[in-house]
Amino acid sequence: MGQGDGMEIVSIGAGNLATQLCLALQKSGHRVVQVFSRTEESAAALAGRLGCEPISRLEDVTSEASLYILSVRDQVLEEVACRLYDSLRRKVAPGCSRVGAGALFVHTAGSMPLDVLPMLRRGVFYPMQTFSKQREMPFTGLPVFIESPSDAGLLRGLAESMGANVYEMDSDSRRYLHVAAVFACNFSNHMYDVCARVLARHGIPFEVMLPLIDETARKVHDLTPREAQTGPAVRYDQTVMQRHLDMLDDDDLKQIYSLLSRHIHRYTE
Amino acid sequence: MGQGDGMEIVSIGAGNLATQLCLALQKSGHRVVQVFSRTEESAAALAGRLGCEPISRLEDVTSEASLYILSVRDQVLEEVACRLYDSLRRKVAPGCSRVGAGALFVHTAGSMPLDVLPMLRRGVFYPMQTFSKQREMPFTGLPVFIESPSDAGLLRGLAESMGANVYEMDSDSRRYLHVAAVFACNFSNHMYDVCARVLARHGIPFEVMLPLIDETARKVHDLTPREAQTGPAVRYDQTVMQRHLDMLDDDDLKQIYSLLSRHIHRYTE
Repeated sequence: MGQGDGMEIVSIGAGNLATQLCLALQKSGHRVVQVFSRTEESAAALAGRLGCEPISRLEDVTSEASLYILSVRDQVLEEVACRLYDSLRRKVAPGCSRVGAGALFVHTAGSMPLDVLPMLRRGVFYPMQTFSKQREMPFTGLPVFIESPSDAGLLRGLAESMGANVYEMDSDSRRYLHVAAVFACNFSNHMYDVCARVLARHGIPFEVMLPLIDETARKVHDLTPREAQTGPAVRYDQTVMQRHLDMLDDDDLKQIYSLLSRHIHRYTE
Repeated sequence: MGQGDGMEIVSIGAGNLATQLCLALQKSGHRVVQVFSRTEESAAALAGRLGCEPISRLEDVTSEASLYILSVRDQVLEEVACRLYDSLRRKVAPGCSRVGAGALFVHTAGSMPLDVLPMLRRGVFYPMQTFSKQREMPFTGLPVFIESPSDAGLLRGLAESMGANVYEMDSDSRRYLHVAAVFACNFSNHMYDVCARVLARHGIPFEVMLPLIDETARKVHDLTPREAQTGPAVRYDQTVMQRHLDMLDDDDLKQIYSLLSRHIHRYTE
């Protein structure tokens, strides 16, 4: 047994990431004891899957856990952390200015710095993946980026207990990692969405596109994306590009097509 | 034995698609007898891999083949087809106005209509995939879109002999399929390329991104791309988006980031 084994965990958040992280933690022998969400139904849904207590008031968060994981929207992370800190401080030792000597507090936000957390023992635990509530996501082989001046060993042990690939990375590098991930995941998925819309308008099932999508992703395991680039923009086949522009019925799509084609040409020429 | 078995084939073109198509044809029991490319080295490289004759003058194309596959850039397809037509007409029957009664001529261009070919027996054979010369691409399970008023059965047999999934589709639908494929493949690969550039600037290896890229592609096997969309733009987390924009050091990247984020929001709200 290494560090980070059998922890008692509170999840502050019940969104996509929190859901899959909690399920994977529980499968790896840890115990999620409470799930907090402002939205009662969200807390109940995840707590129900985990068999633990749902709460929707931060004041009800137990002070007995060994790990608090904050997986809330970046916009509210700092505020939630401060309110949690105040609430636990009141519970643990009224009048004491330090909280969390016995527990570790981490957030899971790729683009937020470590110091958004006011606690003494704090860290970041950022699993870089695209999570959905209903799609089970094992953590085996998943890259998890950790940062913690006080508890890097514990977080490493926790991530390794889930089978993840652990990387230590500071807040400044991590925010670049996060914007890079937005391009690789969110924006490439949006390209699939545009594709699906064009196909649907012409009665072609999206399924025919899957072998191409799969190969596009597989290819960059062996080639750099630059080497893997194909299509009219890299060939600078203006005949095809103009025909494509004429076919797109939406000004936004025309603009996306032009901008990305120019940018591909700029990168690859 | 069905239609399209053991054909004698000339490849007009020696690019990425021609290379993988010829290799796959040969593996499926067909015989590529000549490879034409204006560039002698390209013709020689592919012909060398196939063990056949390389040629760099259209006048040297044999009139003895049963199938001629034109895989050249869209910009020059019509001109090459006409020159080939003239050359073979002169060989077969001087003074005769029809050519190709014994042979079938197909092109492989997704966005070009069938009637760009002047021959009587003509067709389109469009394997929808991203091909590279050095990356072997089996045709098993690959979607191949065919069109041929005279020879649909023969082309279906040919594609099936390679293990492909065959779809009949007319020229008008196919051009929409092609522009959709540009988004799903070429543009999503470019998103990987932007990602790689951001990572490289900050000393982070691209490999850490592969599990995320793979899952993003896998996800749309089970969910629509709309359902699969995650990230700051779909949450409309303006804090994160503004921070990302501030971090991007390149005006084109800022523009791509803003445009795609707005478009994701428009699609998913």
